[in-house]
Amino acid sequence: MASFVLKGHICQSLDRNHLQVRENHYLVCVEDRCAGVYPILPAKYRSLPMTDFGDRLIIPGMTDLHLHAPQFSFRGLGMDMELLDWLNTHTFPEEAKYQDRDYAEKAYSQFANHLRRSETTRACVFATVHVPATELLMEKLEQSGLVTYVGKVNMNRNSPLYLAEPSTVASVRNTRQWLEDTAGKLTHTKPILTPRFIPSCTDDLLYRLADLRAEFDIPVQSHLSENYSEIAWVKELVPTARNYGDAYRKFGLFGGDHKCIMAHCVHSDTLEMEYMRQNGVFIAHSPESNMNIASGVAPISKFLDYGLKVGLATDVAGGSHESMFRAMTHAIQASKLRWRLLDQSVAPLTFDTAFYLATRGGGAFFGDVGAFEPGWELDAVVLDDENLDHPQPLTVKERLERIAYLGDERNIHAKFADGARLF
Amino acid sequence: MASFVLKGHICQSLDRNHLQVRENHYLVCVEDRCAGVYPILPAKYRSLPMTDFGDRLIIPGMTDLHLHAPQFSFRGLGMDMELLDWLNTHTFPEEAKYQDRDYAEKAYSQFANHLRRSETTRACVFATVHVPATELLMEKLEQSGLVTYVGKVNMNRNSPLYLAEPSTVASVRNTRQWLEDTAGKLTHTKPILTPRFIPSCTDDLLYRLADLRAEFDIPVQSHLSENYSEIAWVKELVPTARNYGDAYRKFGLFGGDHKCIMAHCVHSDTLEMEYMRQNGVFIAHSPESNMNIASGVAPISKFLDYGLKVGLATDVAGGSHESMFRAMTHAIQASKLRWRLLDQSVAPLTFDTAFYLATRGGGAFFGDVGAFEPGWELDAVVLDDENLDHPQPLTVKERLERIAYLGDERNIHAKFADGARLF
Repeated sequence: MASFVLKGHICQSLDRNHLQVRENHYLVCVEDRCAGVYPILPAKYRSLPMTDFGDRLIIPGMTDLHLHAPQFSFRGLGMDMELLDWLNTHTFPEEAKYQDRDYAEKAYSQFANHLRRSETTRACVFATVHVPATELLMEKLEQSGLVTYVGKVNMNRNSPLYLAEPSTVASVRNTRQWLEDTAGKLTHTKPILTPRFIPSCTDDLLYRLADLRAEFDIPVQSHLSENYSEIAWVKELVPTARNYGDAYRKFGLFGGDHKCIMAHCVHSDTLEMEYMRQNGVFIAHSPESNMNIASGVAPISKFLDYGLKVGLATDVAGGSHESMFRAMTHAIQASKLRWRLLDQSVAPLTFDTAFYLATRGGGAFFGDVGAFEPGWELDAVVLDDENLDHPQPLTVKERLERIAYLGDERNIHAKFADGARLF
Repeated sequence: MASFVLKGHICQSLDRNHLQVRENHYLVCVEDRCAGVYPILPAKYRSLPMTDFGDRLIIPGMTDLHLHAPQFSFRGLGMDMELLDWLNTHTFPEEAKYQDRDYAEKAYSQFANHLRRSETTRACVFATVHVPATELLMEKLEQSGLVTYVGKVNMNRNSPLYLAEPSTVASVRNTRQWLEDTAGKLTHTKPILTPRFIPSCTDDLLYRLADLRAEFDIPVQSHLSENYSEIAWVKELVPTARNYGDAYRKFGLFGGDHKCIMAHCVHSDTLEMEYMRQNGVFIAHSPESNMNIASGVAPISKFLDYGLKVGLATDVAGGSHESMFRAMTHAIQASKLRWRLLDQSVAPLTFDTAFYLATRGGGAFFGDVGAFEPGWELDAVVLDDENLDHPQPLTVKERLERIAYLGDERNIHAKFADGARLF
């Protein structure tokens, strides 16, 4: 276990409205855990190895609460459709390629390399239905040093024959095999149960998955209320459910006794919000994806006011890029258009709130993660903005805002996840 | 004058709906003008020097129809307000600094360097009220090799004392001095008359500027119908005008006998559209700016259907970045949210249409610019996407779409403006 000190301009979110900046402070890590932020290094830590990052910024690592590893190959492509057509035309044919281990090897190496170089330290990742490729992805993410949940996808209906699992039995057997193969094998890479969404899983599969979930004691991730056609379809498929969220709830896959992430929630109504609050469901807000496939904009300020748990997500490849900074700016921009075009009762997101979502908001899914609180797990990203020139003096907070709008992986100078330095 | 041949995958817009890709073709430039695109190089051009760009893409240079050079210093900052507050809090204090020639030297050097490295070959640029700084900017842009219009800004009311020109006489005198100083001095950098917007110019100043415009035979650029508060204010200030555009028209600054660009047009009604069509006014669509300061989204498909002239703009620093590729993706994304949230009668923009706006659409303001038609001025950008890895084969068009979503200045391999190679 690692103990060390980092020095620099330390920025973190205190709550959804307050971003704290402490210039030239010391961030202490003792046995992989944060031991606090100090203006003067306490005597008891002076024997620890220290890295002085000078004028650079140190922020908590960011959590990407929802993205699809196999879709990384077609990021930035095919943004001309809505969800259901987009799945059939672009997504499913690409995902079918991961039956080929060589293709998966090549594609997942690229994905893991990009994610490692980004500001993300934690992520909740969809793979495909394929067990070998999913296990390969988990090994690659383990090697990257990132902390992740990875899900083998379940889908046994309303999906093309070349991709769907042929039966409930096969889907359950594959899932059990994957969970047994990976149990206790990796340190930073854990399985998460991943029914794709209600339309792609039969009722009996969903009930069986809930049993598996309980047996292996793992969390759940899926999609919720992204698109109008999807929502109408779920209403047909599960007519007894009061809404889309209630459908998951009926099958025992909507939080409560387990951790659960639902991506999108663009069109969730008050009852669905209430179910999410009661069950502690995390919302993975995916603003760029929701623009690109014309889904809409989730009312994030309203969700936060209601006490819901919200994190931010790139949703690659509905989103085009793995950068959480880009996700932050898209979240702010989309919220302003929602405010202007649709509903002035839901306030636009500020920069401070977007930073909160990207750090503490999503980090909470992993436990005590996303800020430099004493005792919390230590994820840190060191930012160098020397290439973003400017003629005037800037405050540290202004520099952080500029990096979010203008920066890219060249600005990620160093990175630590769960106390270990990745680069 | 330069004559040469470029070889590569040549992409251009044929019209708003058709992007043409010609793989491994020859683009011929004879005496600074395009002489066509050929699958086999005609014998008469075989003695010309040829550069083979191999697997790289060659596209027309892009035209940024509207951006503010002095605001480049605070790109990506202060995006928490609407237009009028944003001007008073962030913009005017920064613009006042350009009274200091040393500050202008430093800031405009950075601006010109970034614009030179971007995919932009032509631009219509706002400076500040300051004559020396504006002339300095024009020299720097001339040195960059870009082809630009640059405007000394006019503002003599409703502006802070530290920035406003003290009287109509002073504003006109300064403008005349600037026009005389720069007349015929530069090859690729021309003056454009730039009343900031109606609220910042008195009626008598606007009439006098129209006289100056005619005397020097130069085009006009300004802002139109960006924000609701601004529009209401113009209605108070020019009560006899039928709309905001009509106010410019009354003063003789709205096209017809001269070239004219109006930025934004987010909230233009049918009558304003009709005035723009009658007068051949160019619309500078600024999607990111219109998101960032929560103005809204202009109905671009409707404008094009109506026969209006539309180009694309970054509007730095309402927009955070000088990249026209980013402006393209923001235009597509904003149009999808407008369609989803506000009005399904206006179709979202396709990639092909966004590319059209960025090349032919805005290029038309400069004449025969923005495509590789025989006889047209030759602007070309060579794109290298080798750093954007992917596991699967991609078509050239897919590669272009990916560069727009994922690329940055590292992907600009070479650049030609008006027949000359910049790098």
